[in-house]
Amino acid sequence: MRLNSLLGSAPTLSIAAAESCSGGGIAQRITSVAGSSAYFLGSIVAYSNDAKHRLLMVPTSILDQFGAVSAECATAMAEGARVAFGASIAVSTTGIAGPAGATVRKPVGLVYIAVSDRSTTRCQEYRFSGDRRSVVAATTDQALAMLVAAVEAALNIV
Amino acid sequence: MRLNSLLGSAPTLSIAAAESCSGGGIAQRITSVAGSSAYFLGSIVAYSNDAKHRLLMVPTSILDQFGAVSAECATAMAEGARVAFGASIAVSTTGIAGPAGATVRKPVGLVYIAVSDRSTTRCQEYRFSGDRRSVVAATTDQALAMLVAAVEAALNIV
Repeated sequence: MRLNSLLGSAPTLSIAAAESCSGGGIAQRITSVAGSSAYFLGSIVAYSNDAKHRLLMVPTSILDQFGAVSAECATAMAEGARVAFGASIAVSTTGIAGPAGATVRKPVGLVYIAVSDRSTTRCQEYRFSGDRRSVVAATTDQALAMLVAAVEAALNIV
Repeated sequence: MRLNSLLGSAPTLSIAAAESCSGGGIAQRITSVAGSSAYFLGSIVAYSNDAKHRLLMVPTSILDQFGAVSAECATAMAEGARVAFGASIAVSTTGIAGPAGATVRKPVGLVYIAVSDRSTTRCQEYRFSGDRRSVVAATTDQALAMLVAAVEAALNIV
């Protein structure tokens, strides 16, 4: 785990997550590594809209206007997780893992991943292929990659 | 997944989790099943003491007096998750996954798992053997078993 080599000894940054379609996979992957408790504060797995609002402070106006699977919601989730945990950097995921839940505009595999630090929040849209397991795995992999990149940038590692 | 057959269609109960040493494994296992969003509200993976206090409302007096790995903390975590998510039933885990973090009184493999419903909260102590991966897996399995038993009891299934 790249995070452990970046942050394992005397971490200067703390990290957190807000997970919808990754379903806890980000936390599970990070905490599978011994020593992660030094820098990983935790993750809010917010599967319901109500949890996204109550625990991650996603405005109901975003949920009503754009839906839970949107760049706006992913951005608010990452910012909410960073504030809720008091973390330096937070990553979030929201998407349609399938097989149900898809619409014409939001197909299975549509996923938004955002990373928030103290100065900015960036969100990217993905269209992953495959079944539920594949979409969740791709989401988790990509979220961890974006998190590592954000940690490297914060540590000024090019 | 037994939960899906119990709750998958027209669920009358909602469930949530508060995870420390299972590290998101409970959420990951539950959400790996399509349809789980109908009854699973989410999980707060609270790896730091501060997160246990801020997000799960574990009193600092419990953390100071008994420590995060204690029946008192597991009980407060389960109750906190149930309230935070507004869930019918919540399960919690806290323990020493290892290899670090052990003390004479709290060896690697010591785990507390609690289940809270609207009327009561029960906590059990376990001593799991093996390495970090084994302890986390045993914790996740046992927590899911206790959660299923609580759901069956709530549904009056003997």
